[in-house]
Amino acid sequence: MANFFNRAFLGAAEKDEVTPSILVVGTVAFDEIETPFGKTGKIVGGAATYISLSASYFVKKINMVSVVGGDFPADVIKSFQKRGIVTEGLQILKDKKSFFWKGSYHLDMNNRDTLVTELNVLADFDPIIPESYQDSDYLLLGNLTPMVQKKVIQRMKKRPKLIVMDTMNFWIESARKDLDEVLTMIDVLTINDAEARELSGEFSLVKAAKKILAMGPKYLIIKKGEHGALLFHENHVFFAPALPLEDVFDPTGAGDTFAGGFIGHIAQTEDISFANMKRAIIFGSAMASFCVERFGTERLMDLTEEEIDERLQEFVDLVQFDISLVD
Amino acid sequence: MANFFNRAFLGAAEKDEVTPSILVVGTVAFDEIETPFGKTGKIVGGAATYISLSASYFVKKINMVSVVGGDFPADVIKSFQKRGIVTEGLQILKDKKSFFWKGSYHLDMNNRDTLVTELNVLADFDPIIPESYQDSDYLLLGNLTPMVQKKVIQRMKKRPKLIVMDTMNFWIESARKDLDEVLTMIDVLTINDAEARELSGEFSLVKAAKKILAMGPKYLIIKKGEHGALLFHENHVFFAPALPLEDVFDPTGAGDTFAGGFIGHIAQTEDISFANMKRAIIFGSAMASFCVERFGTERLMDLTEEEIDERLQEFVDLVQFDISLVD
Repeated sequence: MANFFNRAFLGAAEKDEVTPSILVVGTVAFDEIETPFGKTGKIVGGAATYISLSASYFVKKINMVSVVGGDFPADVIKSFQKRGIVTEGLQILKDKKSFFWKGSYHLDMNNRDTLVTELNVLADFDPIIPESYQDSDYLLLGNLTPMVQKKVIQRMKKRPKLIVMDTMNFWIESARKDLDEVLTMIDVLTINDAEARELSGEFSLVKAAKKILAMGPKYLIIKKGEHGALLFHENHVFFAPALPLEDVFDPTGAGDTFAGGFIGHIAQTEDISFANMKRAIIFGSAMASFCVERFGTERLMDLTEEEIDERLQEFVDLVQFDISLVD
Repeated sequence: MANFFNRAFLGAAEKDEVTPSILVVGTVAFDEIETPFGKTGKIVGGAATYISLSASYFVKKINMVSVVGGDFPADVIKSFQKRGIVTEGLQILKDKKSFFWKGSYHLDMNNRDTLVTELNVLADFDPIIPESYQDSDYLLLGNLTPMVQKKVIQRMKKRPKLIVMDTMNFWIESARKDLDEVLTMIDVLTINDAEARELSGEFSLVKAAKKILAMGPKYLIIKKGEHGALLFHENHVFFAPALPLEDVFDPTGAGDTFAGGFIGHIAQTEDISFANMKRAIIFGSAMASFCVERFGTERLMDLTEEEIDERLQEFVDLVQFDISLVD
């Protein structure tokens, strides 16, 4: 079996002994999920949770910034720490409740209804960056109000090598001015196809990408769920499919898991070239394909390198073809 | 610039002087199309038209079997012949009218409403195979009643090296018994995602593919329109995206153009291995990407080898990535 994962990992370790670090900002929360396959009770979710767990398979130091209430289980925080996630920047507001989202998916899994959203601790979230996080090499801003995302960038004394940001339709509609400003401060924007259309006012994703790249980001990743992801940069475009699975059990967190694998691979290899971003998209897609196999974060807690290698090989088999070139 | 097209073409010519031939059976018809970009009057369409034009860029001999009425323009038939399409098997029923379809596309181009269907000559179509077609190496059965598709296979004295068949939801619903029988007689089935779900009763395309492969075909191609195409064979799966285009002008005929490029590449290279089918999927996708750029068959009438080469290069750039293997 080919061993993609180890190769990159050892490669980074051999290069020097400095461990690259990723600052992850986003929600750590409770979710309650209904899919055609079943229901969960209250389980752990949130963008920063999925991003951090996914990225933790690639680098040893994930600096998490988020906020939870006194109701958040201490043993979950310990399980984060076990996976190399630093929780110094995870604020715990003892008298408040954690952010809660409840949603229900349709059969096609590309559509969902939000049943409950309780902001709780998120209402006045002030993202405090601990001093020990200031040397973070890479920054991933999970979906949060653009104002909070901006604060994080401003509070970094040294600009990270790459800033990746996620957002959603809610902010496009309700905080457009702030969003436009943050877009000028970042390197990579990740959004889904509907959001790309809304942000640009263009139905064609190619036209949408041109307009969005003109707003600030140098790279744009458009996530299309089961239909894969597109990476745009200048006049280049790269496409990675989602792995065709027998069952998509629960898509919650798939986009964040994708983003975690993406930034994880980039940090691990310390290479922000376009060629390496293509590989990062494949790593992100592989991680997302695990996420959807079980409810919540279950599948992300104890993946092995062999499993990840095997999954990457499936992606290679899925899309690689050989057309010999005659120059 | 890499030259994929010439390479394969010269390769086949060098190997021996026998020209591989493709028998194409399907409709030759009039269409009237409305899209968000405009309306056509009555224009030439039909599955066999698109398949044959597309395949004509790959091999010199396309044997067409179809039927038109006295209203079908002689100069269009001449333009077919100019592209190497043999029309001996194109029946002309002088006193009748050609098959006519009128449809309207929604903005997303993945959905369309059929406004008018006039069967006309198609109502009693008896597919007569001229003696000169009997040595056809490959057979592509465009979407027609399963009974007609079966007759064509039965009337071939020598089984072609590969039989590729298209069908549609209408036959799945109204002629299931005949369809099931034809499925045991062919090698490759091409259908779209909705049809795969209907034919198998499975929502998951991976599960659907398993069931359909058990019905007879050794290979299954599931076309997902703008979301690309999947090729299934035994436990293998290959995916090719559609090229992200600024505008999809008119998707009519894209699936047939894809099939024509697919069988065209296979015939040109005389190689029915899985590895070559992957390449054929890419060639088919490239041809389809031209088709949708203009109304009807316009774009397929005078493509150059340079244009096709350039388009193939775009596909290579779109999906190829390099993850080095460590065995």
